[in-house]
Amino acid sequence: MSKPLILVTNDDGIVSNGIRVLAEVMSEIGEVIVVAPDSPQSGMGHAITIGEPLRLIPEDLFDDLNIKSYKCSGTPADCVKLAKHHVFKDKSPDLVVSGINHGSNLAVSVLYSGTMSAAIEGAIEGYPSIGYSLADFSHDADFSHTRDYVKQIAEEVLAKGLTKGVALNVNFPPKQNEKIKGIKICRQAKAHWEEEFDHRKDPYGRPYFWLAGNFVNNDKGEDTDVWAVDHNYVAVVPCQYDMTAYHTMAQINDDWEI
Amino acid sequence: MSKPLILVTNDDGIVSNGIRVLAEVMSEIGEVIVVAPDSPQSGMGHAITIGEPLRLIPEDLFDDLNIKSYKCSGTPADCVKLAKHHVFKDKSPDLVVSGINHGSNLAVSVLYSGTMSAAIEGAIEGYPSIGYSLADFSHDADFSHTRDYVKQIAEEVLAKGLTKGVALNVNFPPKQNEKIKGIKICRQAKAHWEEEFDHRKDPYGRPYFWLAGNFVNNDKGEDTDVWAVDHNYVAVVPCQYDMTAYHTMAQINDDWEI
Repeated sequence: MSKPLILVTNDDGIVSNGIRVLAEVMSEIGEVIVVAPDSPQSGMGHAITIGEPLRLIPEDLFDDLNIKSYKCSGTPADCVKLAKHHVFKDKSPDLVVSGINHGSNLAVSVLYSGTMSAAIEGAIEGYPSIGYSLADFSHDADFSHTRDYVKQIAEEVLAKGLTKGVALNVNFPPKQNEKIKGIKICRQAKAHWEEEFDHRKDPYGRPYFWLAGNFVNNDKGEDTDVWAVDHNYVAVVPCQYDMTAYHTMAQINDDWEI
Repeated sequence: MSKPLILVTNDDGIVSNGIRVLAEVMSEIGEVIVVAPDSPQSGMGHAITIGEPLRLIPEDLFDDLNIKSYKCSGTPADCVKLAKHHVFKDKSPDLVVSGINHGSNLAVSVLYSGTMSAAIEGAIEGYPSIGYSLADFSHDADFSHTRDYVKQIAEEVLAKGLTKGVALNVNFPPKQNEKIKGIKICRQAKAHWEEEFDHRKDPYGRPYFWLAGNFVNNDKGEDTDVWAVDHNYVAVVPCQYDMTAYHTMAQINDDWEI
C-alpha cells in the first residue's frame, strides 16, 4: 500500500517550531508536503487574498526530512487552495493538517484562528482535515508531550475517515509535570474574549490602540474544549461550516410580518 | 422613547456607496454612528488585528446626515470591537448593521466575508446584528430596490429582537425589471467555490498567482439563500457561531480507540 499523502500548513509561518514538529510527526506516517505562509498569520480568521497576487516559492527548510516545502505570501486558507491547484495538481492529499499552533484555539477562537481556517478550508475542499494547537504562546514552547497524540489522531482519521465537511479542532494543554490524561471528544465552549484596548500615543503624539483582553469562560459544562484542556486532556472538537441557526428559523418566520 | 442607537460598519471601506445607502436608511429609524475600515477589506473573513496597532480617526463623510463617523485602520471585526470600547463606551448599540456589501455573501461565503464577520462579531458581543449584501459587485451598483427591505428588516429586529448569539445574513438580488418578490427565511446552501488560479509572470519574469473561480451550487433545496436570491427574493439566513459538528461526536467516540 502506498503511503498517505499529507499536506502540512499552519498560521504561525513556515519557520515556526510548531510546524516543524508537525512535519516531523507526519513524516513517520506518510509522504509529506509543506505549503505554509511566509510570515505569521495569527488572527487572520478565514481570510483569503483576492485583491493582490500570491507568490508560491520553493524552500529548503525541510530537506533534511526529505520533505518538499513551499512558502506562500497569502493566508492559511490561500495555502490550502494553492497547494490543491499548483502543488498536488491531479493528486489529492489524503489528509490536511495545520499547526501546531503556538497558542490555544478554544471556544469561539475557532472563528479568529488562521490554524483552523486552513483545516476548515481543507474540509470544504473535501479532504479529512485537522488543526492542532498548543495552549502555550511562547516561541520556544515545549511540544514534546504532543507528539504521540498528534500521530494517534492523524492515524485514527486516516484509518476511519471523517464525515465529509468536518474538520477536527485539536487543542493540547501546555507541558506539565503530570502526563496528559487522554483524549476527550468535546463541543466548543460558550466562552468569549473580553477585550481591552491599550490606548497609547505614537512618537508624534497621535493616538493608537492595541488589542488586548482576557478569555472568559462562563460555560460550566464538562463536555467542552476549555474544560478538557484545563483538566490536562487533549480536546478534540469536530467542526463544520454550516453557520445556519436552524433553531431560530421557525421563530423568525412566526414573529415577523413578512 | 429615545431613538435606537445603531452602529454602521462594512468591509468595502468607509467611502463605498453601499455603506452610504445603509447609513441613510438607518438614520430614518435611529441615531447612527459609522465606524468603518479606511480601505477595502473584502475576503478578510473573521480576521482581527493583533500584531500591529490600530488607528481610529474621525471623518466628516456623513456630516450632511448629522452622523458621526470614524475610519479605522483594521478589519471589520476590529471596527466593531473598537466602536464598543472607544466610541460607544458606556452606552451600547441597540443594533449593529454591516454593509451593504457590493457582492453577495451566500452559502459558505459567510466564512470569507468581512461584512458578515462584523455582524457575527456584533452577535458575539451580545448585540442584535445584521449583515446586508447585494448580489452585484460593481462599484456603482444600484441599491435603490433594497432600501425598503433594509429598513423593514432592521425594524423587525429592533421590535422583536434576535436570539442571543444570532446574526442575520441578508442577501439582495441585483436590481431587475421585476420587483423583488418578498423575504424568505433561509438556510445556508451547500454550495462552494471552485477556484482557479491565474498563473502569470511579473515584469521580472517571476511567477505569481491570482485567485479566481466559479460559485457552484449542487444544493437543489428551495429553502436556501442561493435559491431565494436566484428567484428574486431577499434571503435572510440566521447565523450562529458554534461550529461544533454535534452529529459526529458520538460516532467519533464510538469509532476511535481512545
